[in-house]
Amino acid sequence: MRYKVTLAYDGNNYVGFQSQRNGLAIQDLIESALKVIFKEDIRIVMASRTDAKVHAYGQVFHFDSDKKKDPYKLKGSINALVPKDIHIIDIKYVSDDFHARYSVKEKTYEYLINIGEYDVFLNGYAYQCFYKLDIDLMKRGAFLFLGTHDFSSFNTTPYSVKENQIRTISEFKIIKNKNILKIRVTGDGFLRNMVRIMVGTLIDLGRGQKNIEDIEKMLEKPSKNTKRYNITGSGLYLVKIKY
Amino acid sequence: MRYKVTLAYDGNNYVGFQSQRNGLAIQDLIESALKVIFKEDIRIVMASRTDAKVHAYGQVFHFDSDKKKDPYKLKGSINALVPKDIHIIDIKYVSDDFHARYSVKEKTYEYLINIGEYDVFLNGYAYQCFYKLDIDLMKRGAFLFLGTHDFSSFNTTPYSVKENQIRTISEFKIIKNKNILKIRVTGDGFLRNMVRIMVGTLIDLGRGQKNIEDIEKMLEKPSKNTKRYNITGSGLYLVKIKY
Repeated sequence: MRYKVTLAYDGNNYVGFQSQRNGLAIQDLIESALKVIFKEDIRIVMASRTDAKVHAYGQVFHFDSDKKKDPYKLKGSINALVPKDIHIIDIKYVSDDFHARYSVKEKTYEYLINIGEYDVFLNGYAYQCFYKLDIDLMKRGAFLFLGTHDFSSFNTTPYSVKENQIRTISEFKIIKNKNILKIRVTGDGFLRNMVRIMVGTLIDLGRGQKNIEDIEKMLEKPSKNTKRYNITGSGLYLVKIKY
Repeated sequence: MRYKVTLAYDGNNYVGFQSQRNGLAIQDLIESALKVIFKEDIRIVMASRTDAKVHAYGQVFHFDSDKKKDPYKLKGSINALVPKDIHIIDIKYVSDDFHARYSVKEKTYEYLINIGEYDVFLNGYAYQCFYKLDIDLMKRGAFLFLGTHDFSSFNTTPYSVKENQIRTISEFKIIKNKNILKIRVTGDGFLRNMVRIMVGTLIDLGRGQKNIEDIEKMLEKPSKNTKRYNITGSGLYLVKIKY
């Protein structure tokens, strides 16, 4: 029996979704809850590791068990066992050929930037930007990321890891609503810290630290030696995963 | 020299605005910061005590000092000394006849209720309501509070405290935006827990635990013995104070 689970979390209190040695991860709490409910060790397979402090509206994982539980009741049982900053939204039975990571078609992330007065309610939920930003120029920059590129200049995976650096971005929008800039990115996959580095690059562009030609060059001559601005994770949200 | 200060805070980590024996209050942190800056003990006079966990967008206090500091720089100095969940928005010099509490003309509070799926990002910021609510009936109930009434049935000040129980409510709106109900109340003043009890009463009405006649009776025959539903403070926001 394979279960597909969709969940939301506030990442501020965690080292990330995936279990790590340096602190509490969301995976730890989910697996503890599943052990209590299923009375067996259960290992979950996640769609996406998210970094420390990164939030999610629509993270997905799957797991297997011989025991068949009613999805709606199971949702309630897990939610009763995890802290209030983690919430299971939906559980479904899926066939054995569904895989939370390998079956992903597209992922959507959003990044929030507060360009107005500091707001206590956005502390940990949006990047506070005190620079004046040229938003039209940032939109032109965002447009350059669309399509299929080698994103070697825009991630932190080391050289030693032999990982394909080609990804396809299908959506890259910058929406301004009062003092909040929402940057929305959809792609078939993202390399380590790739969204944060693309957002950081657009902020550098908007405040005049980089120009359009710099970004074109980073895309046309991809290099691991490029200077990167890896912006904080606490403004980042994993919004949706399409299968 | 009298200073008028407007500030915002996330109340979740505090026992309230006013200093208390049972824990950390926002007043404690503000006065500590002022002591560092002015090098003297400064006592602030607040517009409104807010309860534990209650938030503010526009709380106001005043204080006096013989030392004249530039308001803009003073704002920066205080903000650098207080935690990130407190933020001074504005500081102005005012004349000595301005009083943060006695000069108040009107206060506006908002209360947020989530009537949809539990949302991790509203934990501590909105009341989670799992009851089905008749919102039109709640709007009829809210209408009853408008005007000048004896609010003895709607507060927790004990009998022993000889306090005038008459208040005038000039605005009482219920606005539904997707799954969020925003209840907005403006009045010339509010008794202890009065907003929370009015909101709790409207929830009782919306879920069928009370009817319109019950509220009419509570207003027409004000009594301290009325059974009251004092809803959690963590959905409440002090939004604006008019002088």
